[in-house]
Amino acid sequence: MGLFADIKIYQPKGYSSFATSCGIKDETLDLGIIISDVASNAVAVFTQNQFPGEPVKIGKEHVRKGQIRAVVVNSKNANVGTGKQGYANSMKICKTLAKQINCEVEKIFPSSTGVIARQLPVDKVTFAIGEMASSIKSPANFEEFAKAIMTTDTVPKLASAKVGEASIVAVAKGSGMIEPNMATMLSYIFTDAKINREELGYIFRRCVNKTFNCLSIDTDTSTSDTALIMANGLAGEVNLVEFENSLLDCMELLTRKLARDGEGATKLFIVDVENAHNEEQAQTVAKLIINSPLVKTSIYQGDPNWGRIIMATGKNENIKIDPNNLEILWGEPAKKYSNDELDSLQEYLRQNEQINLTVKLNVGEARSRAYGCDLTEEYVKINAYYTT
Amino acid sequence: MGLFADIKIYQPKGYSSFATSCGIKDETLDLGIIISDVASNAVAVFTQNQFPGEPVKIGKEHVRKGQIRAVVVNSKNANVGTGKQGYANSMKICKTLAKQINCEVEKIFPSSTGVIARQLPVDKVTFAIGEMASSIKSPANFEEFAKAIMTTDTVPKLASAKVGEASIVAVAKGSGMIEPNMATMLSYIFTDAKINREELGYIFRRCVNKTFNCLSIDTDTSTSDTALIMANGLAGEVNLVEFENSLLDCMELLTRKLARDGEGATKLFIVDVENAHNEEQAQTVAKLIINSPLVKTSIYQGDPNWGRIIMATGKNENIKIDPNNLEILWGEPAKKYSNDELDSLQEYLRQNEQINLTVKLNVGEARSRAYGCDLTEEYVKINAYYTT
Repeated sequence: MGLFADIKIYQPKGYSSFATSCGIKDETLDLGIIISDVASNAVAVFTQNQFPGEPVKIGKEHVRKGQIRAVVVNSKNANVGTGKQGYANSMKICKTLAKQINCEVEKIFPSSTGVIARQLPVDKVTFAIGEMASSIKSPANFEEFAKAIMTTDTVPKLASAKVGEASIVAVAKGSGMIEPNMATMLSYIFTDAKINREELGYIFRRCVNKTFNCLSIDTDTSTSDTALIMANGLAGEVNLVEFENSLLDCMELLTRKLARDGEGATKLFIVDVENAHNEEQAQTVAKLIINSPLVKTSIYQGDPNWGRIIMATGKNENIKIDPNNLEILWGEPAKKYSNDELDSLQEYLRQNEQINLTVKLNVGEARSRAYGCDLTEEYVKINAYYTT
Repeated sequence: MGLFADIKIYQPKGYSSFATSCGIKDETLDLGIIISDVASNAVAVFTQNQFPGEPVKIGKEHVRKGQIRAVVVNSKNANVGTGKQGYANSMKICKTLAKQINCEVEKIFPSSTGVIARQLPVDKVTFAIGEMASSIKSPANFEEFAKAIMTTDTVPKLASAKVGEASIVAVAKGSGMIEPNMATMLSYIFTDAKINREELGYIFRRCVNKTFNCLSIDTDTSTSDTALIMANGLAGEVNLVEFENSLLDCMELLTRKLARDGEGATKLFIVDVENAHNEEQAQTVAKLIINSPLVKTSIYQGDPNWGRIIMATGKNENIKIDPNNLEILWGEPAKKYSNDELDSLQEYLRQNEQINLTVKLNVGEARSRAYGCDLTEEYVKINAYYTT
């Protein structure tokens, strides 16, 4: 993924980590834990899918209490559709970790990701946690944590920033079953800034709405989507405007990394809808375009097929659009291509790994952005041959 | 497509046909015309896409007057996004045909299908129509017409029935860009039954709602979707209940043929949602399932992944579903598979070309059905490498 430069990790104070392969499926890393030395103000947003995984139910209960000491995430099994046994298994993991780090069980935040509708081999996980003491890394190794939570991701996804004395590290995973339905894929953000929980909630939700909620890989909404932020306060107070800007930058970068690494994707696809009546119209149209299989396949092979853009823009009869006002532009900065310039447009589409499309409705002032990717044969292969 | 038996065509009286390759793109058939000896009562439904093709605009105006003598359809070019010139081109085709068969121009019903956003080489079409007189076939060759209107279809699609003295022949094309958004792909239905136009409209719309509007290949809504029925009355009056049942059978068969021939599809996928609160809930859930890329890819390789069915069923937070009530059944008749019977479910999924899924919400009495297909690498290939 040549689009993204290597990032520098700014280490927030007071975090340690553990990662291992406990053998849920194979020999690769499948368990990642981040521990804060002290209880941290925490806020999370979750999937809107009506059949959430069992760890999501527990995570909601625990984060509601306001403070979190550690997150524990396993990959290879999502613990979804597993009923009471699945819930008990996730609680067992929380209890085992709480005992290890000597805190209340409700200060543990659990997540699971991977295949759904199979029971998690919980004893493998709790055995690994029981033996972890000598292998804890301090300061935390966030790269290793990012690797441990990967499923069909091809690369670990991190972003980091410095705000005054404080640092932010943001980690995410997810490459399919992603649709911005008020929540997101798995993402964990750690900072040592001191921020009260209410303020942290406002800042985080504003950032989620501008980033993760604008991402769509395949319109499918995962049953495990979770995004959590922990602020342990060890670096003291920060300028909140600067903090929000830096957090937004980190989350925007993760969003682009997630879109670019969409299952089977070869291109990051960013759609801006501008001059709409209102934000809802702009967002709906942006999503119609980013989710259209015919648009996504034309982006894949760099076909300058603006007919498909028109089709997707107009396909929801409830979103009234005047075709005579419509303008279609490509690139960054956005440029109009006439019918005589289709060769040059094709060159733009074929030679770039990030494709920017701007659709101007020219009826108002509102705008919205959506992040997605192309649709390739590989997406089908990954999901058709993925063994349950 | 071994699913479908060869059909017998019952020839309605008073229809003739013409089909040719006029060379819009290559040497294959690209122009099909069906002519009724007499003006016929006609009703049509159209795409709800807000950027309809130019022929759609003309078709709407002409069918509103109530009577149609002939339909003229070209493939290889959809005449969409072509502005005033596109409109003039489609009118030129109508005028040329009207002159040939000696009728008012508003009794001609035009359609175009194929690539969008390119001007139609109209002179090739009007030249062919100008020369058609000696090549008209009477009675009509509907199979040839069905072939002439194909685009990425792999087989021509026809259905036929006898109602008393009258006959029905139904023809359709379409294999991608199909989503039941109040209208349908291209379909033309010809009968010699005598039915007043108002009654014909009621019957046709009821049948469309139960068939074409329940079909979804890829959620994309074509700018050209059109379904027309012509009743020339030459066979006299019929029992309207019998007529509606026979018409419904024909359109249901076409719907299954269209779904099975979805771009790249290897399987016909039929989803019944039962015991819903109301029909809207049933229909929404059926469409969520039939349109889920993760469900479609699991149907492709016959993966008994009921977790994906749960995910798709719950993904719209506005459609409240109680997970505890949910039942998932497979096959026809519908059968429940326990977790111990996944091998047997996998065998069902792998060995059948038609897959039936029944999801019971168990909260009410309403039901709805959706028709679709699996998602394969071939879908991506067809649409990514389709040259504009």
